[in-house]
Amino acid sequence: MNKKVAILMGSDSDLPIVNGAISTLKEFGISTQVHIMSAHRTPKEASDFATNAKSNGFGVIICAAGKAAHLAGVIAAHTTLPVIGIPMKSNALDGIDALLSTVQMPKGIPVATVAIDGAENAALLAIQILALSDETLALKLEEMRNKMTEDVKAKDKKLQSQLF
Amino acid sequence: MNKKVAILMGSDSDLPIVNGAISTLKEFGISTQVHIMSAHRTPKEASDFATNAKSNGFGVIICAAGKAAHLAGVIAAHTTLPVIGIPMKSNALDGIDALLSTVQMPKGIPVATVAIDGAENAALLAIQILALSDETLALKLEEMRNKMTEDVKAKDKKLQSQLF
Amino acid sequence: MNKKVAILMGSDSDLPIVNGAISTLKEFGISTQVHIMSAHRTPKEASDFATNAKSNGFGVIICAAGKAAHLAGVIAAHTTLPVIGIPMKSNALDGIDALLSTVQMPKGIPVATVAIDGAENAALLAIQILALSDETLALKLEEMRNKMTEDVKAKDKKLQSQLF
Amino acid sequence: MNKKVAILMGSDSDLPIVNGAISTLKEFGISTQVHIMSAHRTPKEASDFATNAKSNGFGVIICAAGKAAHLAGVIAAHTTLPVIGIPMKSNALDGIDALLSTVQMPKGIPVATVAIDGAENAALLAIQILALSDETLALKLEEMRNKMTEDVKAKDKKLQSQLF
Amino acid sequence: MNKKVAILMGSDSDLPIVNGAISTLKEFGISTQVHIMSAHRTPKEASDFATNAKSNGFGVIICAAGKAAHLAGVIAAHTTLPVIGIPMKSNALDGIDALLSTVQMPKGIPVATVAIDGAENAALLAIQILALSDETLALKLEEMRNKMTEDVKAKDKKLQSQLF
Amino acid sequence: MNKKVAILMGSDSDLPIVNGAISTLKEFGISTQVHIMSAHRTPKEASDFATNAKSNGFGVIICAAGKAAHLAGVIAAHTTLPVIGIPMKSNALDGIDALLSTVQMPKGIPVATVAIDGAENAALLAIQILALSDETLALKLEEMRNKMTEDVKAKDKKLQSQLF
Amino acid sequence: MNKKVAILMGSDSDLPIVNGAISTLKEFGISTQVHIMSAHRTPKEASDFATNAKSNGFGVIICAAGKAAHLAGVIAAHTTLPVIGIPMKSNALDGIDALLSTVQMPKGIPVATVAIDGAENAALLAIQILALSDETLALKLEEMRNKMTEDVKAKDKKLQSQLF
Amino acid sequence: MNKKVAILMGSDSDLPIVNGAISTLKEFGISTQVHIMSAHRTPKEASDFATNAKSNGFGVIICAAGKAAHLAGVIAAHTTLPVIGIPMKSNALDGIDALLSTVQMPKGIPVATVAIDGAENAALLAIQILALSDETLALKLEEMRNKMTEDVKAKDKKLQSQLF
Repeated sequence: MNKKVAILMGSDSDLPIVNGAISTLKEFGISTQVHIMSAHRTPKEASDFATNAKSNGFGVIICAAGKAAHLAGVIAAHTTLPVIGIPMKSNALDGIDALLSTVQMPKGIPVATVAIDGAENAALLAIQILALSDETLALKLEEMRNKMTEDVKAKDKKLQSQLF
Repeated sequence: MNKKVAILMGSDSDLPIVNGAISTLKEFGISTQVHIMSAHRTPKEASDFATNAKSNGFGVIICAAGKAAHLAGVIAAHTTLPVIGIPMKSNALDGIDALLSTVQMPKGIPVATVAIDGAENAALLAIQILALSDETLALKLEEMRNKMTEDVKAKDKKLQSQLF
Repeated sequence: MNKKVAILMGSDSDLPIVNGAISTLKEFGISTQVHIMSAHRTPKEASDFATNAKSNGFGVIICAAGKAAHLAGVIAAHTTLPVIGIPMKSNALDGIDALLSTVQMPKGIPVATVAIDGAENAALLAIQILALSDETLALKLEEMRNKMTEDVKAKDKKLQSQLF
Repeated sequence: MNKKVAILMGSDSDLPIVNGAISTLKEFGISTQVHIMSAHRTPKEASDFATNAKSNGFGVIICAAGKAAHLAGVIAAHTTLPVIGIPMKSNALDGIDALLSTVQMPKGIPVATVAIDGAENAALLAIQILALSDETLALKLEEMRNKMTEDVKAKDKKLQSQLF
Repeated sequence: MNKKVAILMGSDSDLPIVNGAISTLKEFGISTQVHIMSAHRTPKEASDFATNAKSNGFGVIICAAGKAAHLAGVIAAHTTLPVIGIPMKSNALDGIDALLSTVQMPKGIPVATVAIDGAENAALLAIQILALSDETLALKLEEMRNKMTEDVKAKDKKLQSQLF
Repeated sequence: MNKKVAILMGSDSDLPIVNGAISTLKEFGISTQVHIMSAHRTPKEASDFATNAKSNGFGVIICAAGKAAHLAGVIAAHTTLPVIGIPMKSNALDGIDALLSTVQMPKGIPVATVAIDGAENAALLAIQILALSDETLALKLEEMRNKMTEDVKAKDKKLQSQLF
Repeated sequence: MNKKVAILMGSDSDLPIVNGAISTLKEFGISTQVHIMSAHRTPKEASDFATNAKSNGFGVIICAAGKAAHLAGVIAAHTTLPVIGIPMKSNALDGIDALLSTVQMPKGIPVATVAIDGAENAALLAIQILALSDETLALKLEEMRNKMTEDVKAKDKKLQSQLF
Repeated sequence: MNKKVAILMGSDSDLPIVNGAISTLKEFGISTQVHIMSAHRTPKEASDFATNAKSNGFGVIICAAGKAAHLAGVIAAHTTLPVIGIPMKSNALDGIDALLSTVQMPKGIPVATVAIDGAENAALLAIQILALSDETLALKLEEMRNKMTEDVKAKDKKLQSQLF
């Protein structure tokens, strides 16, 4: 049976963006848990979750946080599972603060960082990781890629008919 | 048997930094291939490598590139394996160009980005991913973490004796 | 007969901006093809298009892409035709990611980069390039410049009457 | 008796800069403890230290860290003592990553951030805080200010004699 | 009796953000004075206020200003009380100008800088400082922290029921 | 006979970087003129040069300038020839000032911008433009591309022998 | 009689911001001319205006431009009158492009740069310059300053009554 | 008799750069006073100097400061004389902090900002301002401009002989 994916977000205001990750994981049939958990407001819950994540059957942890986005780093400090960070855009600085706070991790504790507000890609990266030991999942990823390619080609075809 | 890790770098001038990834993977006994390969100067080699990486036994591909760092994205476009990007600092803009070119991937094609010049962390992230299906590797990661913790504590102890 | 201009865009959401290039080329009577084509979602289509662009009668390729904008660089890697990059502003970072991903190309593979969302200028640059071997086109460019000058002078004249 | 000040730094490589804080606190006769402690490599030690800092007699905690500088935020999450953050410049991005990671804290958990590499000011801020309930310390601060003013005036006087 | 907190803002347009600080201080029962005062438009009032703040019973001064935000630095130059700076976002540059103008203070004159528009945290930092000599206040801070933790946990619980 | 290429630079201190363009053009046998010419210190010479460039047999004008790099824009304002801008890194801001001053041209007057200090690519772009009407030049470009590819492959082969 | 002030703007879309300068100069009774004039679209008009500005009775020239804002620099290249630059915010990059293009002038040709969209301050700076040889104007500036101070104090007084 | 120019710098470490302004003013025979004066360390001296500058015969005040560069703004708050700000590059952030702290002044109090470390241009701007009422000075400025032009042309001529 596949390992589970956890999605942690610093605040419930992150949910509209994070939904992109939830629905992608659901689409691939990945067992997922979603939690509001803060590196600063619930530090004990966060470190407990990370410490026990592996034994609780999780394979990947996705963390979404904005501003001085410490959540992914703090989670990564308490587990050797791969941790994926989604830097969230907030009301100032256009997300560059969250990006740098997430990606510029010191030697020893990596966070796999995706684009600002890149929730779908965080989910896809988690699925790519799980697919390494699940050939069915790997096939689904290939199918999704093919579908993506076909979608672009269909849009291109439609554009041709519109332009001329 | 474990899947292999590939390390691709855009130029041989990246080797001094990339060596941090090579030695980390060696330390963990991961079978590794290292290539100089450019999204722009050897695009066919790069897309061929990525297309065949999975069937050639690779599990993770690490890509190091500077400036308009397209290598990780181009590799990711041709495989569903997890791709890790190391943005390389170059002679201007202090690495922010490579960071944004690597991390800001569009929906559908994630690149797991680590810190600017963060070669060791790229390797550790690859190992964390492989360790999901290799408990021995997972144990080695735990040991390394414990050693890191002990190192910091030893340095702190030494500092106490120096300061007073 | 004049060489054709290709306009490639990473997503159909780029069309409102890219239309500025399409209409400018049409105004100058340049034979133009427009495609949705992605460095990451349709990499094979993109490299095939670029590889065959010269023999298919294209003289210049304009590429519009946002975020980690790899399209222009990937196209440029497969052709020696001049490639013009339009960095597209997206929902975070105000376009600086696309600008740096487009302009900071490594030695050997140039991309002629214009301003963020600068679709009209991309078209004008393509026309300036084609005009090197088409004196009629060169004359039209001169006329457009004169008209631009006259427009500014007319606006200035109108302003004088408004202000006083 | 005055409360103690703790200085925590993420790595022993931070010591040359942090020494500016240590010597300033010594100059004012403040009882100080200095530790190497990492939000990521010794997270348990860090949270334990912060949790017990108040009962252990500390009044202010100064945290120095670079890159994705989480130390001050993590410490602040475990104590209601004032926490002062020193963003450390490292080999890329000129310190802006550490500054944003330190200062952009979410609502509820403040970090009092000083300038990049601003170790002396971190110490002075700690002393200003302790001086609120220690009039002798407040007087020493006034004296230091007066001395600073006199120093600038002396340098200005010396400049006058040099220039003419 | 507790020392008072002053909140100074450069313009009355800052009030909507600054209200977050006012209400937080009120919640904790801190005696607070609020003034519109400008480093540039009322420099004498500002320096007089700062010079006399300590003898007038103030313990901490909070300064909110945008753009080339000099207010906190100018106030800090005239007092040895702890000065907290809130960089205010304005119509250009997304607040980075105010942040750098506030935090990058030269050696000798610290400003305790909080996040852009981080008015609540400025108030909480002031309360943390006052709480060093007021155990009742310290207890209230602990309670607020506990409440914050419980709020996040309640939101997480609610999320669980919504998602499944 | 081929059109000539002009290289204009704002200051003789730009020569070490600009030499990369000069030698590349020489390698391809392009007739080249190099001038020190400043948008601000020799504005009349600059506008005269641009105004007459076409009738003087030039096909492309390359402009290198740093800081508030106006040279390319000013030249472009006086000609409809394609103008290529090289933003030069100077002693502050790491070249971002020159990049933005060169690339962010208003509607109507494009500048084909290459990477910061990207002199070789400026030359190659000029050659790509001239090659549109010179099949021999186009073949030389193909050869150079092939050589670049072979060079990378040779370096990769050498790396394999070194690593193992 | 006082020298005149010229206000040049790159586009009529700049007028809403530039109006702040026009009305300020009118308030002080300064004889003002306003023109739409572009460094790139009407370069000859711009250099002619600047070349003759002094003999035409102008004392100061204010230039407003956005993006790669060359107008102030180009005007300054053709006159030794003081030139004031207003960097205009446009649809991308939040005005930082215009700021750097205006302020980072090379040695020899200064542009007196004010804040992004800082039209009123450009006018006030022009008035301060003219006031050096016009004591009546100097007195009006003092009065305006006093009024500004009184306005802030009145707003502060009003705030006191609102808050309590 | 001409008005004097004051040059104020925040620290004696600024002198090597500021010397460029001193020597330029000396070259033009402008009566100049140079002072080390700090907005933060000698605020009273600074405000006194500014308040009395006009009556003491000064016409322009040049202020050089780095980091959170408040000096120019604070001086400008106490005088209606034109104030010129030189943002000084320091050990972090490459001068962007000083630039924004100097140029982004609020409505009502302009600072005429020149380039980072642009001391010569600050002096030239001061001279341009004084030259408005001193035709001899204006002539010297014209001569310097002509000499600058001749210097560039001589360098260009020399380059021609070197290249071929």
